[in-house]
Amino acid sequence: MKNKYTYLCLCFSFVFSFLSSNNIFAQDNDALLIRQIYDETLTKGQAYSQLEYLCKKIGGRLSGSPAAAAAVEFTRYVMDSMKLDNVYLQPVMVPHWVRGQKEVGKILNSRKIGSKDIEVCALGNSVGTGKGGITANLLEVKNFDELKALGKEKVEGKIIFFNRPMDATKFNTFEAYGGAANQRGSGASEAAKLGAIGVIVRSLASNIDDILHTGSTNYQLNVPKIPAVAISTKNAEFLSSLLKSDSTVSFYFETHCQMLPDILSYNVIGEIKGSEKPEEIIVVGGHLDSWDLGEGAHDDGTGCMQSIEVLRIFKALNIKPKRTIRAVMYMNEENGLRGGLEYAKVALEKKEKHIAAMESDRGGFTPREFTTEADEKTLKKMQKWATLFEPYGISAIKQGGGGADISPLKNQNTVLIGYVPDSQRYFDVHHTSADTFDKVSPRELALGAGAMAALAYLIAQYGL
Amino acid sequence: MKNKYTYLCLCFSFVFSFLSSNNIFAQDNDALLIRQIYDETLTKGQAYSQLEYLCKKIGGRLSGSPAAAAAVEFTRYVMDSMKLDNVYLQPVMVPHWVRGQKEVGKILNSRKIGSKDIEVCALGNSVGTGKGGITANLLEVKNFDELKALGKEKVEGKIIFFNRPMDATKFNTFEAYGGAANQRGSGASEAAKLGAIGVIVRSLASNIDDILHTGSTNYQLNVPKIPAVAISTKNAEFLSSLLKSDSTVSFYFETHCQMLPDILSYNVIGEIKGSEKPEEIIVVGGHLDSWDLGEGAHDDGTGCMQSIEVLRIFKALNIKPKRTIRAVMYMNEENGLRGGLEYAKVALEKKEKHIAAMESDRGGFTPREFTTEADEKTLKKMQKWATLFEPYGISAIKQGGGGADISPLKNQNTVLIGYVPDSQRYFDVHHTSADTFDKVSPRELALGAGAMAALAYLIAQYGL
Repeated sequence: MKNKYTYLCLCFSFVFSFLSSNNIFAQDNDALLIRQIYDETLTKGQAYSQLEYLCKKIGGRLSGSPAAAAAVEFTRYVMDSMKLDNVYLQPVMVPHWVRGQKEVGKILNSRKIGSKDIEVCALGNSVGTGKGGITANLLEVKNFDELKALGKEKVEGKIIFFNRPMDATKFNTFEAYGGAANQRGSGASEAAKLGAIGVIVRSLASNIDDILHTGSTNYQLNVPKIPAVAISTKNAEFLSSLLKSDSTVSFYFETHCQMLPDILSYNVIGEIKGSEKPEEIIVVGGHLDSWDLGEGAHDDGTGCMQSIEVLRIFKALNIKPKRTIRAVMYMNEENGLRGGLEYAKVALEKKEKHIAAMESDRGGFTPREFTTEADEKTLKKMQKWATLFEPYGISAIKQGGGGADISPLKNQNTVLIGYVPDSQRYFDVHHTSADTFDKVSPRELALGAGAMAALAYLIAQYGL
Repeated sequence: MKNKYTYLCLCFSFVFSFLSSNNIFAQDNDALLIRQIYDETLTKGQAYSQLEYLCKKIGGRLSGSPAAAAAVEFTRYVMDSMKLDNVYLQPVMVPHWVRGQKEVGKILNSRKIGSKDIEVCALGNSVGTGKGGITANLLEVKNFDELKALGKEKVEGKIIFFNRPMDATKFNTFEAYGGAANQRGSGASEAAKLGAIGVIVRSLASNIDDILHTGSTNYQLNVPKIPAVAISTKNAEFLSSLLKSDSTVSFYFETHCQMLPDILSYNVIGEIKGSEKPEEIIVVGGHLDSWDLGEGAHDDGTGCMQSIEVLRIFKALNIKPKRTIRAVMYMNEENGLRGGLEYAKVALEKKEKHIAAMESDRGGFTPREFTTEADEKTLKKMQKWATLFEPYGISAIKQGGGGADISPLKNQNTVLIGYVPDSQRYFDVHHTSADTFDKVSPRELALGAGAMAALAYLIAQYGL
């Protein structure tokens, strides 16, 4: 048995080798070029120092803020100095939400502890309470079903406390985030429908700690807009345990945030024209805006700087891609997605042909995978490249999400691709004051840029 | 062709399924138990808060220091309170090196810059210069061949500046470290053989930054002991560029470190006795000592706390392992390995049978692999378990190193296993003041403990 089987294997293997020898030859050359790409970014990469500028000199850059305008100018300047074929700004009107003076939160009338300050931060896009704040009894719920079961009578006039944790047992923290995020996104409107006057949302965090996580809340049409704040996971645990024995406790919070009129901003775009099929475009991108609490390092300074680094690598190694590679810093992913929507709209108007769009918006952590929304045939084609990435920590190219900013390109037959770094640390810092430059590792950042450049190169050479 | 091939495949697959159905059934149960192990540590893990105590209340704990003694007591206390079958200290005499008052370094007589302070730190085990320091011209070399080529005449009376960087293009930073580490370990003696009076070693670091990396230097027998210091990679680059145009520059440094007489310390050991084969022992371990500059967080507080967590998980889930699981906090990995040597010596004297020893001493980062020094047959057996780890980020069980502390067990027929987390950030903090608690992610730490517990469980149930 063993001998026959071995013989059979050898035959298969010979035929297979013969059929694929051209392919193997090409892969050898590709492997060498990809080695050069990684060497370039690991030894001469610019993404880290550019990120330092973006984080430390410009900082948090919410859409419409002066810092966001500075980030537009900075990234345009950086790409301008790279002698690309084309660098331009794409105008887009964006929401202009401002946090205003620092929020205040307080537990009141507790039989057990009297009153106690509790740090809160307004959720993005939230209306403010204005001076005097709001005060009401609290009702804790874990989800919308529990909320609805309480009914209008109980909810009316109350502050709803959404306290469903992210599921720590999920290895992929984005899954855990997905399982908890509707409290922040829709909690205010769901509570308002039943007459609540405000909501407190447990921070969407992987750990029990003191960090406040902001993020968008989305008001539904024709539902009263009520103020929404986040509290830390540690305070959420505390408040929940207090309410178990002291249900008449009330809560006061005061926020001064407001939505101002839309304001002009820009997507920042740079490109290297394809030498053979310039009309076929491959986007690499991230979003330039960030929340205001931190420096927008992992979300998403890293994705932007990696995208610029992809172009820099091509220039430094004098690689002439057959198809056009375009880096796009999208504006306003965080609280409107206007940049992504505008980009896709203009692409359609100009009849541009985007064969692929890749986004890095999961932090600048160590590489793990690429995910794609491609059909089976295209996925199979991409998976033939998988071995080229194995030496650099990428263990899979598989089905999965692309990214928010590139999602509007989906109905233009664009293959959407997500660069997927390790997810374990992302929700330690996501949307918080802790999302700072010092949390980024230079090597992890560079390896991400290398991965993106290598995949962009392969798509540019072979299409999809 | 296609149909015949499909048929053949189906046949193979049927036969294979039939033969391995028992195995698959066992794997299903194992998968469920491993899920429980990870759930336990991800939701109720103690390693992170214990590490906080070790780092923030005890801190850096070089062998022979009061902090090392405190770490012994702390880990014994923690394991004592876990109701294990056995907790004990294993005495071992360890080197007692002390840094003394803060080191001073200075560039002198530069035609270009005059004099300039340069931060230095003594290498571990180095002799000190004593008061007044040493001053001499510098000779830069990249390796021992260059040093030898210079010859006695040129080297005599000089300070040798070893300046070979870690190779940033290597994905695995431990390979890059391995390629540069002999400058630190043997540079002093190699230079002394040719009459040098001191050495400066470029920090073994992944990045160009201001951080000083200490670590052992090992004096050879019958070679004069000359003082050795490290400078940061940024200063190494600076000094190198200065020397190119200003070769007569000299350097002064003053260190007050010294080696005191050996002192009594301990390995700290706790175990759960096997229910069926208690005489077969599986070690999980890390080293309790650390360098003095930082808090010994990733090196190797994380490995110790993960090892204790393995036992805690077994207790919490009431898993009765068939074989004995023993957690060992080794003393003195950093500048002597006495703990590891003593442990193996005692094991031999007691005729203990160690079937496997697993070490976590590559930082508490996100999981990647297990490596083992096992023979092919044993490796194949372990690789059958690989799919059980895939959901938790471990992509391979493969040939590779175990760990320094467990290495003396090798000639006792023990299968040595290394827990291998991601390596990208390790040499940002290794042996430095930056190796602090805040650099550790709670989830990454817990996932490592889960991986170690799961593999220990499989070995305990099925042997090797």
